[in-house]
Amino acid sequence: MYDLIIVGGGPAGLTAGIYAVRFGLETVVLERSEISGQIALTDIVENYPGFPSITGFELMEKYKEHALAAGVVTKITDVLSVRSEGEKKLVSTDSGDLEARAVIIATGANPKHLGVPGEEELIAKGVSYCATCDGPFFRNKTVVVVGGGDSALTDALILSKLAEKVYVVHRRDELRAAKILQDRAFAAPNIEFIWDSVVREIVGTGDKVRKVEKVVLEDVKTWETRELPTNGVFIYIGIHPNTEIVDVEKDRNGFIKTDRWMGTSVKGVYAIGDCRDTPIWQLVTAVSDAAVAATAANEYIQGLEK
Amino acid sequence: MYDLIIVGGGPAGLTAGIYAVRFGLETVVLERSEISGQIALTDIVENYPGFPSITGFELMEKYKEHALAAGVVTKITDVLSVRSEGEKKLVSTDSGDLEARAVIIATGANPKHLGVPGEEELIAKGVSYCATCDGPFFRNKTVVVVGGGDSALTDALILSKLAEKVYVVHRRDELRAAKILQDRAFAAPNIEFIWDSVVREIVGTGDKVRKVEKVVLEDVKTWETRELPTNGVFIYIGIHPNTEIVDVEKDRNGFIKTDRWMGTSVKGVYAIGDCRDTPIWQLVTAVSDAAVAATAANEYIQGLEK
Repeated sequence: MYDLIIVGGGPAGLTAGIYAVRFGLETVVLERSEISGQIALTDIVENYPGFPSITGFELMEKYKEHALAAGVVTKITDVLSVRSEGEKKLVSTDSGDLEARAVIIATGANPKHLGVPGEEELIAKGVSYCATCDGPFFRNKTVVVVGGGDSALTDALILSKLAEKVYVVHRRDELRAAKILQDRAFAAPNIEFIWDSVVREIVGTGDKVRKVEKVVLEDVKTWETRELPTNGVFIYIGIHPNTEIVDVEKDRNGFIKTDRWMGTSVKGVYAIGDCRDTPIWQLVTAVSDAAVAATAANEYIQGLEK
Repeated sequence: MYDLIIVGGGPAGLTAGIYAVRFGLETVVLERSEISGQIALTDIVENYPGFPSITGFELMEKYKEHALAAGVVTKITDVLSVRSEGEKKLVSTDSGDLEARAVIIATGANPKHLGVPGEEELIAKGVSYCATCDGPFFRNKTVVVVGGGDSALTDALILSKLAEKVYVVHRRDELRAAKILQDRAFAAPNIEFIWDSVVREIVGTGDKVRKVEKVVLEDVKTWETRELPTNGVFIYIGIHPNTEIVDVEKDRNGFIKTDRWMGTSVKGVYAIGDCRDTPIWQLVTAVSDAAVAATAANEYIQGLEK
């Protein structure tokens, strides 16, 4: 029986592991694959304090080295479910069942992709899912934002302060974003809406180092297509949290509801990072959640031992 | 008029600056001195993910380099007060008044010191104010915890899992800590309470590299003194948040009350890091608070501009 099982080996999971080991807890971090965390897919990270500019892959390597140095034990396995039986937590994996006194869920979330030609190969080469992360690379350039919800408009507004021109491409002729965000977006002089349209293709340019050159748009009413030159494409058609494995209270989008100590609706089960109802999806919030949850789990486990 | 003034140039303040600059906000970070942040006084940091082991001073230098690279403007000045006049925030400093649309308070907090001989010179050489930070350096050693409140017992319990022996020295014959913490501490086989006693002196050993060797205790009833050999002294007699400069809602210990977005009771004024009602006082929570507050401040400022 472990003291603590951490499900997910991204930045949040590894940080929880570092804190747990420092508390003297018998801990294991379960990772699905060697390459964990959305961050490993990110080109350049410039907002994790201490590293002015580093690739996501390199930063993830540094987290792994740190965890290793701290004595964190990791195991590559696919977690099928996490259940609570009173004071015992059962973690089913594709290589057998494990038991622990407490569990931290750090399974992350994935932005939904458009699924159009050019998108995958141009990720981090102009295609992005986060303006807070990548916006500054598009100063005085042209960007296309895809989507019509709160995230799309929030990030369109962030981009409007940096980029010269922001196009918002939306499949319908009205937005579902909050009224106040709509008001602000309509008032921004450099934001232009392209209604009733979808992106059919993202086209790159360059031989060795390819980058986004334009998008092909289709009018959903007339079926006409046209090309729009752009330097970047920011896609906001939803984020999918990886939370199916655990039966705790979630919000309507599937993000796990947490309290101030990262506790879920089930005692002894905590959720951290992108899979919880986080205010922003950032590295710093993920590693902070991890420290808070590990501290809370340690106190909870000490209480059980009595 | 600035978009955003950040008061405090520790890890939280500088990170808020990095995020704010990336959002395109006209920002200044006001620091009291060149050396900012409690962390610069910390010997070794091993729980800031990405740096397995680094001195607090070096880490603070890295934050500064990062802020500089990101284009954060800092100014050395003493802030006397922060006031809100509707949508305008006034920041009085010893070198004149400044105005901004929003303010982030990142003034930190200081653990109270005992004020006994040996304490100051042995900080980070056995004298500590944080078991989560420094506990792992005392594996299988003897430590003295000073205090009788929640923090003292929480950290005594953390230390009891790492150290061989934990003495809790308390000036009275009963604890004010929560009952559940008392129960756990009394049940821990390696925690011993020394009642009605205070630390009169912390004694170091070694020529060049000095470190804690023992404490001199005084019984407050008999006035008798005795020596107790120990490797570490963890002091929990209170934390003082530097929040006098701003008139917002605070808890009974002076920490600024914040919401999920780090907003205070005054619109457009945010509080982050050690000076707010944070669940734990850690680097990761401080920089996370900073990202959240900068994001919220950016949205708030965009709303004003309309």
